[in-house]
Amino acid sequence: MDFTLSPVQEEHRDAARRYAAERLAPDYRAREHRGAVGPDVRREMGELGFIAPELPRALGGRDLDRVTTGLLAEEIARGDFSVSYLQIVGSLVGQIVATNARPELAEHWVPKICGGEEVVGIGLTEPHAGSDAGMPLLRAQRDGDDYVLNGVKSLSFCTEAAAVVVFARTGEETARGKGISAFLVPLDLPGVVREPYPDMGTKAVGRGAVHLTDVRVPADHLLGEEGAGFSQVMRGFDFSRALIGLQCVGIAQVTVDETWQYVSTREAFDQPLSRFQGVSFPLAESETLLTAARLLCYQTLWLKDQGLPHTAQAAMCKWWAPKTAFDVVQNCLLLHGQYGYRTDLPVEQRLRDVLGLQIGDGTAQIMKLIIARERVGRKLAP
Amino acid sequence: MDFTLSPVQEEHRDAARRYAAERLAPDYRAREHRGAVGPDVRREMGELGFIAPELPRALGGRDLDRVTTGLLAEEIARGDFSVSYLQIVGSLVGQIVATNARPELAEHWVPKICGGEEVVGIGLTEPHAGSDAGMPLLRAQRDGDDYVLNGVKSLSFCTEAAAVVVFARTGEETARGKGISAFLVPLDLPGVVREPYPDMGTKAVGRGAVHLTDVRVPADHLLGEEGAGFSQVMRGFDFSRALIGLQCVGIAQVTVDETWQYVSTREAFDQPLSRFQGVSFPLAESETLLTAARLLCYQTLWLKDQGLPHTAQAAMCKWWAPKTAFDVVQNCLLLHGQYGYRTDLPVEQRLRDVLGLQIGDGTAQIMKLIIARERVGRKLAP
Amino acid sequence: MDFTLSPVQEEHRDAARRYAAERLAPDYRAREHRGAVGPDVRREMGELGFIAPELPRALGGRDLDRVTTGLLAEEIARGDFSVSYLQIVGSLVGQIVATNARPELAEHWVPKICGGEEVVGIGLTEPHAGSDAGMPLLRAQRDGDDYVLNGVKSLSFCTEAAAVVVFARTGEETARGKGISAFLVPLDLPGVVREPYPDMGTKAVGRGAVHLTDVRVPADHLLGEEGAGFSQVMRGFDFSRALIGLQCVGIAQVTVDETWQYVSTREAFDQPLSRFQGVSFPLAESETLLTAARLLCYQTLWLKDQGLPHTAQAAMCKWWAPKTAFDVVQNCLLLHGQYGYRTDLPVEQRLRDVLGLQIGDGTAQIMKLIIARERVGRKLAP
Amino acid sequence: MDFTLSPVQEEHRDAARRYAAERLAPDYRAREHRGAVGPDVRREMGELGFIAPELPRALGGRDLDRVTTGLLAEEIARGDFSVSYLQIVGSLVGQIVATNARPELAEHWVPKICGGEEVVGIGLTEPHAGSDAGMPLLRAQRDGDDYVLNGVKSLSFCTEAAAVVVFARTGEETARGKGISAFLVPLDLPGVVREPYPDMGTKAVGRGAVHLTDVRVPADHLLGEEGAGFSQVMRGFDFSRALIGLQCVGIAQVTVDETWQYVSTREAFDQPLSRFQGVSFPLAESETLLTAARLLCYQTLWLKDQGLPHTAQAAMCKWWAPKTAFDVVQNCLLLHGQYGYRTDLPVEQRLRDVLGLQIGDGTAQIMKLIIARERVGRKLAP
Repeated sequence: MDFTLSPVQEEHRDAARRYAAERLAPDYRAREHRGAVGPDVRREMGELGFIAPELPRALGGRDLDRVTTGLLAEEIARGDFSVSYLQIVGSLVGQIVATNARPELAEHWVPKICGGEEVVGIGLTEPHAGSDAGMPLLRAQRDGDDYVLNGVKSLSFCTEAAAVVVFARTGEETARGKGISAFLVPLDLPGVVREPYPDMGTKAVGRGAVHLTDVRVPADHLLGEEGAGFSQVMRGFDFSRALIGLQCVGIAQVTVDETWQYVSTREAFDQPLSRFQGVSFPLAESETLLTAARLLCYQTLWLKDQGLPHTAQAAMCKWWAPKTAFDVVQNCLLLHGQYGYRTDLPVEQRLRDVLGLQIGDGTAQIMKLIIARERVGRKLAP
Repeated sequence: MDFTLSPVQEEHRDAARRYAAERLAPDYRAREHRGAVGPDVRREMGELGFIAPELPRALGGRDLDRVTTGLLAEEIARGDFSVSYLQIVGSLVGQIVATNARPELAEHWVPKICGGEEVVGIGLTEPHAGSDAGMPLLRAQRDGDDYVLNGVKSLSFCTEAAAVVVFARTGEETARGKGISAFLVPLDLPGVVREPYPDMGTKAVGRGAVHLTDVRVPADHLLGEEGAGFSQVMRGFDFSRALIGLQCVGIAQVTVDETWQYVSTREAFDQPLSRFQGVSFPLAESETLLTAARLLCYQTLWLKDQGLPHTAQAAMCKWWAPKTAFDVVQNCLLLHGQYGYRTDLPVEQRLRDVLGLQIGDGTAQIMKLIIARERVGRKLAP
Repeated sequence: MDFTLSPVQEEHRDAARRYAAERLAPDYRAREHRGAVGPDVRREMGELGFIAPELPRALGGRDLDRVTTGLLAEEIARGDFSVSYLQIVGSLVGQIVATNARPELAEHWVPKICGGEEVVGIGLTEPHAGSDAGMPLLRAQRDGDDYVLNGVKSLSFCTEAAAVVVFARTGEETARGKGISAFLVPLDLPGVVREPYPDMGTKAVGRGAVHLTDVRVPADHLLGEEGAGFSQVMRGFDFSRALIGLQCVGIAQVTVDETWQYVSTREAFDQPLSRFQGVSFPLAESETLLTAARLLCYQTLWLKDQGLPHTAQAAMCKWWAPKTAFDVVQNCLLLHGQYGYRTDLPVEQRLRDVLGLQIGDGTAQIMKLIIARERVGRKLAP
Repeated sequence: MDFTLSPVQEEHRDAARRYAAERLAPDYRAREHRGAVGPDVRREMGELGFIAPELPRALGGRDLDRVTTGLLAEEIARGDFSVSYLQIVGSLVGQIVATNARPELAEHWVPKICGGEEVVGIGLTEPHAGSDAGMPLLRAQRDGDDYVLNGVKSLSFCTEAAAVVVFARTGEETARGKGISAFLVPLDLPGVVREPYPDMGTKAVGRGAVHLTDVRVPADHLLGEEGAGFSQVMRGFDFSRALIGLQCVGIAQVTVDETWQYVSTREAFDQPLSRFQGVSFPLAESETLLTAARLLCYQTLWLKDQGLPHTAQAAMCKWWAPKTAFDVVQNCLLLHGQYGYRTDLPVEQRLRDVLGLQIGDGTAQIMKLIIARERVGRKLAP
């Protein structure tokens, strides 16, 4: 066992921490108001190798390990939680396209993703189906050299995305998880309408829906084999779940760091707040949980890097880290007193932002189902 | 023991529930955008007897018991949490002025408070002192027939208030809680500047600061005796703490009610969500905690009505009900999935709103101090 | 609304508190070692009117309200948790027999129960069926003037009981909750074998099984109508659930009381322990939860007294009060440091005792099911 | 980063798991009844290299890394929690003696410790001082070639220990943590009286007190320099805190493993219990927390092995793992229903056993103090 980061990992982590503090943090709220990450930050993130660096160099990646990707997500989330969504979506979609698209398609899109030139979203869920991704209503019908798509998908970066990976029913099969195919759908095609969602947080992520009405997608935009979409993408999610865990650890840890600072300098009843056990003990608890959650996520990424099973542990990352992070940030907000409630400190924005990841990408209930299934098998699990 | 509401109590409760559902709920978000409750709602609330009805009829009240006031706050909070602040502030300030002001002053202001014609705020804390109200920096210097006030106070309804009750040092004494006097300060006096705070929630409450620079207040605006301000107001707080508890119970209960509705009608994995234990059990837990918290608050108000000791129990209401309500609303938000995260449902606004009352009016730490002191005495308490 | 206890209620409560402190507490551990409450305490409890005083005078009760019964259970549990089981079982069984037995049978047994002369247990669950009381394997076959019973039932007071009320299948019907009849079975009949359970706590309750092999019970020992047993007893459980809640509140409250005492007198780092927020705050939290849980239970009993619906609220009492009490006692144990872990203080016995009531009489899961059903109906509940 | 165990680590872990399951688990309760681990198990543990294998071969150890020691403690605790105390105490005392004793003393005692021939206890706390080890009342007075010791110390293995390491005041200095010296005191010296404590759990550990009355200890039994005892031992505690964490993870994990088994085979309402979300979700949560806690402890041991700072993280292990383990075991007990409450399953014994480690070796409050101090420095910490 060895918990040492390699020099390359350290270098990337430090670069991301600097970038987050110097470039991202100052405009955290401005980006929220704009409702977009914007092309400048996107390209900088790409140039610095912060997006999907685990992908092969040939496709614009850096051939790095996934632990490094995790370290980067953790650091970027300290500066701007919405910006770190670029990394989660980039790694998830980049991997799907790199692995399943025809070579020309992959060569066209994956370097754009890694370079931050374009965002390619992922449309897994539909407005009326929540976490039950195995039952899409979106239909894709083969028609000559095209597929014709009709339906609607929710996605992050609804406004900024140049394309979206969607999962659609192609077969007659109606069983959950069967007969589903994946497509890469450019969003400048006729029949596409974007609808932004009015979210309470991560507004720079610009979540929303794309409505597809008779959208003709060339047949070579099919990803993988027809009918194999569902199992493909589910594999990718194990990876992004651990990344999400680290995003959440990052945003909570920076808040804890700032809160120690605040309570050490602010006085009440003639003492620094930090000298009260009612103040310091909850912070000590937060440190503990974040340290443990971070290790849980690192190990999951390492398992993925080694090709070892990690489905249950990824689900652990996904339910526990976001929940813990939310609780930690909420507690830190309270420790700031009335200042924490104000929008001139970033704590309240972080609270609204981090809340979303207890829902997005699968609720805690779904994650606990997965863990139970991995332990006792599908038949004996709920 | 008798838990029956009297016909008068039931009637008031039902009237408030109707008003909250029909008049307040539809504009809950609009009022947030406007950043004010507004004179219309204020006056309606007053006319319906929803503000400080426990005050004497001679001063515009209704001679009702405080349990009724609590029922009203609980119901109004179901429709608009910010509007119910009118009730908390009205009861707190109304009582202070009615009890401590010279008769003419009381007769001028208290009916306006009860009638919703004017808001009189309460400036207990200062931006840099948080919950430590016993150490005000605001100074009031006697000068002829006036007191001259210099300092700054935080208050709810900073923009809407016509006057504010403040606590200022009048003596040379510098000990905590000593030499403090209360004044009613009309806010149209020269030297008053209002500064709104950019809060993350309860925006219609319009919290902010009033900066007082050489503000001359007539000496007859002194409330009670010089130097007796601190202990006066602390008595009032026991009452408002129980009201705050019920506000929080109300906003959480309406959210639970709506969530049962939502999970009963929405399906996942071919079943109504409510059929999953992972969904229904947290709701059953919420029902339990809210039922218990409600009784805790009712009994506190009843103790106050009877003139029985209730300081510890009021502190219990103040830390536990707001915390429980926040947790409950947060859980309900998650049970709505992506919809809960959107601003077109009221859940997220409620979450932001209810969060503030874990801070305002004394943090949980302060409340636990009070409980400990009531149990083991000041010497043995932290 | 009126939270005042009547003089009669106060008198009973005070008498029970005295008895618990003076007579019961000193032998709390001795009774555990003996594994029985014993006839002396039983008869004293009966003579003092502490067992099932809500039953009619004609049957040995006192015609009191059920809130009084709750107050008595709360107080007795402060002295000896196992002894208060006499009250729960007495009220539950007393009511079933009084309401459903033929007059002569009721007149024979109920006064013995109330007087503490005999214990009549209740055999609802079977060793292999847990909380699923609706599917008994015990069979009762009509044979001439008798029923012949075969099967096994778990019960409290397995060793001390003179008789037991059991629920047995009498019909061909095999559906859950159908075709079930209740019998009063004297335990001195041939074919009865008692098997004590080796429990970790409440050892004086002497939980165990009665094995019935061809036990002939006279037909007039049928309670109520054949096939109606299940719904009868379920009604009684609402009542005992609130009593159980108060038992748990009582044992936790006495522990909190003692812990305040302990931390006020013991020093660490040159201060009384109580002066540390890390010590006093958890105690303040415990006070809050117990105060709320107590009210929840009182109101439930009052609802029962009024003939108002209280099934959901009784279920709230049953899951929340035992859980809260366990957490509170555990925390108090820790605050006693190494002393808390020792058997010469009563805290550890209380922890083992109170734990059992998170299981007995229905787990938390069952209770949350009931709450959900009461909210959304059986079809939409889990 | 590399989470792979070395072949040597795997081999040791597997050997310990086998030994725990085959040799220890069957007599877990028998050992509790006997109130001692006993010389046979002790010697087997020693021969298998399960006690303090991180110590040098020259002193009877195995020159292994501390992560291995942790793996061994985790595994042994699955079979018998009390037996794993041998490992914690062995590593802690072994290290102190090996590092600080004169060579002949070390060569006499350390191999006996590692070999399981003798237990050497550690008497850090005194009955009346709890976790405040920096203020011992035990005094050691130099008298010729001896020190004369008077006082009392609490220790594990009070009955089985052949010697004990104690901390005593040697100087006139009365400040906390100053003027304290460590001694190795053979317990067959005149003036030693052993007093066993009646604990609720870990009875085979045989905790108790040694009363020292004019006990003459040869001066060469001084460990380290006079007056330097306190800082010496505090260093060792960081190590044992992580071991304790793993003990607790081990006992909780074996309980979770068995509970999955139980709920998969037992039915209620016509389904395996595991199919209810109310059953499986808490188990999935337990798996998550234990996985995270385990990593937290492994990393702490690794930090120690690397000579890197780990004081804060060791304190995290010490408060969080025991608390989590207790909660997990308690929940598992409840999931076993009435069976969990019985002494014929090991769950209840585990619950009583694991509870002790929320107290022993420093309460959660002490640990949070340490974490806070490491973050903001002594001056700003509570």
